Amino acid sequence: GVKKNIGVLPGDGIGPEVIAEAIKVLDAVCSKYGHKFTYAYGHVGAVAIDHTGNPLPDETLAICERSDAFLFGAIGDPKYDNDPKAKVRPEQGLLKLRKSLGLYANIRPVTAYDSLLHMSPLKTEKIKGVDIVVYRELTGGIYFGEKGRTEDGAFDHCTYSNYEIDRIAHLAFQSAQNRKKHVTLVDKANVLETSRLWRERVNEVAKDYPDISLECMFVDNAAMQMIQNPKQFDVILTENMFGDIISDEASVIGGSLGLLPSASVGDKTAMFEPIHGSYPQAAGKNIANPLATILSAAMMLDHLNLIDEAIEVRQAVSASLRHGMVTADLARNDGYSTDRVGDFVANYIA
Amino acid sequence: GVKKNIGVLPGDGIGPEVIAEAIKVLDAVCSKYGHKFTYAYGHVGAVAIDHTGNPLPDETLAICERSDAFLFGAIGDPKYDNDPKAKVRPEQGLLKLRKSLGLYANIRPVTAYDSLLHMSPLKTEKIKGVDIVVYRELTGGIYFGEKGRTEDGAFDHCTYSNYEIDRIAHLAFQSAQNRKKHVTLVDKANVLETSRLWRERVNEVAKDYPDISLECMFVDNAAMQMIQNPKQFDVILTENMFGDIISDEASVIGGSLGLLPSASVGDKTAMFEPIHGSYPQAAGKNIANPLATILSAAMMLDHLNLIDEAIEVRQAVSASLRHGMVTADLARNDGYSTDRVGDFVANYIA
Ligand SMILES: CC(C)[C@H](C(=O)O)[C@@H](O)C(=O)O
Ligand SMILES: CC(C)[C@H](C(=O)O)[C@@H](O)C(=O)O
Repeated sequence: GVKKNIGVLPGDGIGPEVIAEAIKVLDAVCSKYGHKFTYAYGHVGAVAIDHTGNPLPDETLAICERSDAFLFGAIGDPKYDNDPKAKVRPEQGLLKLRKSLGLYANIRPVTAYDSLLHMSPLKTEKIKGVDIVVYRELTGGIYFGEKGRTEDGAFDHCTYSNYEIDRIAHLAFQSAQNRKKHVTLVDKANVLETSRLWRERVNEVAKDYPDISLECMFVDNAAMQMIQNPKQFDVILTENMFGDIISDEASVIGGSLGLLPSASVGDKTAMFEPIHGSYPQAAGKNIANPLATILSAAMMLDHLNLIDEAIEVRQAVSASLRHGMVTADLARNDGYSTDRVGDFVANYIA
Repeated sequence: GVKKNIGVLPGDGIGPEVIAEAIKVLDAVCSKYGHKFTYAYGHVGAVAIDHTGNPLPDETLAICERSDAFLFGAIGDPKYDNDPKAKVRPEQGLLKLRKSLGLYANIRPVTAYDSLLHMSPLKTEKIKGVDIVVYRELTGGIYFGEKGRTEDGAFDHCTYSNYEIDRIAHLAFQSAQNRKKHVTLVDKANVLETSRLWRERVNEVAKDYPDISLECMFVDNAAMQMIQNPKQFDVILTENMFGDIISDEASVIGGSLGLLPSASVGDKTAMFEPIHGSYPQAAGKNIANPLATILSAAMMLDHLNLIDEAIEVRQAVSASLRHGMVTADLARNDGYSTDRVGDFVANYIA
C-alpha cells in the first residue's frame, strides 16, 4: 500500500455531507488495498469567514500545500450574494486557493449516462454517447488581472502569457491522445488580442501532437454547438472566463449536475471537487447527491496513480445507478438519503 | 405615407440574397401604405475589403449616418478566418460600424415557433412558449477596450462607465414594461469589478421601474438555465461579451436560426440584421432562408413607428410558415427557393 496526505475542505452548504461520503468511499478503498491516507481538514468559504473573517485562512492553505491532493466540497452562501459592496466574499477563498497553489488546469469530464438520458433537457438522440472533457485555464485571464474603479466607471484587465497558454495546451493535447484525438480551442479571436495569442500558441503546441486534430471555434458558436450537436466535441481547451461559461453549459446536457466531478491541477498539488456547488436549500437535510464528490475522489485516485482503485470506485457508482441506489434528484421514486448512497458505494467496494 | 432614408448593406455570403427579399417585402409595404423609402446601398465586410481594402469604407459609413435606419445582411468569409495575423478582417467593419454610429443596444428576440418545436435540440416541453428578448450592450466592454501585445503575452481591457450601463438598462426595463415585467441581469459580479458596477447601476435604474422585478444571475448559471429552463426568462440584460455568448446560445433553443432577427439601436440611427451570419456554403445558390431578414425589416418598421406595417409583415411570415412556403432548412420536404419565399411574403402583403 501507499501513504498519502489528503487535504479535506468541506466548505459550505451541502459540502460537508457529500465530502463525508467521499471519505467513506476512500476509506473502503484504503482498507481493501492496504493504503494509508492521512486526512487534514480545513475551513474554506463562508464557513471560514464565520470562523476567522477570512474565506481562506492561512492554516487551510498550509494544509493544501502539504497535501498530495485535496478534496473540496463547495462554497457559497446566499447571505453573501447580491451585496455588490461586500468586502469579503466566499468566492475569494476559492480564487485565492487556485492562484496560491498554481492550480492552472481545471478539468471537467462531461458524460451522458445512458440511464439518465431521460432527465436531460436535450433530446436523447442529441446526447446519447456524449463524452467531452473541458480543459479550462484557471489562474489567468480576466479573473486575475488588475481590476478597479475609476471616477465614473470600472475596469477588469484580461492578460495571458505564452507560458500560461502553452502548459495547459499540452495537458489538453495529451488528454486527447487517450481519447478521440480531437481538440477544440474555444476563443474569440475575431475580437480579442488574447484570443489571437491563444490561437497562435495552441497552433504551435499542436505541432508536437501530429496525431491530434485541432479545430478553432468562436465562443459564441461554441455556445450554440454545445446544444445543437454536443457529440462533435472531444477535448475542449479554453481560457478562464469562456471555460467557466462553456463548462457549466456543457454540464447540463447530461441531465444531472449530481454526477459531474472536476479536477483543478497544478504542478505541486491538485484539488478535486464536484461541480454542483453549495446548494444551500438542501444543506443539513441528508438529501444531497454524493456521487459527484465520490467521482471526484475517483479522479483524485487517478491523479495519485491509483488507477485500479479509481476504476473500482467508478464501477461502484455505476452499480448504484443501475440498482437505483440514488438520491431523490436521480430517482424515479423517492430515492435514498445521502449517507445510504455513500454506504452502498463503500460496501460495494469492500 | 411617410418618406424614409433606408441604408442597405448586403455584405458577404448569403447577405445579398436575403436582403433582396427583405427589400421586396418593404416595397410591398410601401405600395400598400403609400410610403416612400429611398434606398442607399453600401459595401461592408469581406466584399468591401475586396473592393476598397477597407471592411467599412467611409462611403458606407456616410450612408448609414444619413439613414433613418439601415438593413444589414451578414459579414464574414472563410478566407479571413484562421489567420490570427490578418491585418484586415471583415469583423472590424461591423465593430467600427457599431462604435462609429453609437449602436449601443443590441436587441434580440428569441421566440419558439410552435410549428418548429420539433426542430429544436431541446425537448418540446422545455421550450413551448419561450419568449425572450436579450438586451446586449454593444459598444463597450472588452470589445472596445485597449488591447495589444507585451513581450511574452497579450492583453484586452474591459471597461464600463455608469452612463454606458444606465442607458441600455433603461431600454431593457422599458421593454419589460410591455412584456412579462421581469428583467434578468446576467453578470459575473462574484469575480469582475465591471460586473459589480453593472449590478449597482442596474439596481439604481430599477428604482425608476417599480413594476418590474429584477433578478441578477451569474453568467455561468445563466448558460445552464438557458438550457435547463428557458421559460423563466423574459428580458435579459447584459454586457457585450456575455451578451454575445448568451444570445447565441439562446438562439438555438427555438430550433432555427433562420427566423431570428435583431436590432442594434443608437440615438441617431439603427441597424437591423438577421442573426444567422454569412453562411458561405449557401451563397449564390438561392437556398438561404430570407425570413430572419424579413423579420428584421419588421423590427425596422416598428422602430420607424410603422407599427401596423410591422404587424402585417409578421403575419405574412406566419402565413408562409403555416403554408409550408419555406426554404429547405425549415421544410419537411424539399422546400422552396429564397426568392419564392420572398415572393410569397410580398404577395401576401399586397
Ligand atoms: C465561484 C466562482 C468564482 C467560480 C468561477 O467562476 O470560477 C465557479 O463558478 C467555478 O466555475 O468554479
Ligand atoms: C462577428 C463578431 C465580431 C460579432 C460579435 O462578436 O459581436 C458577432 O458574433 C455578433 O454577435 O454580431
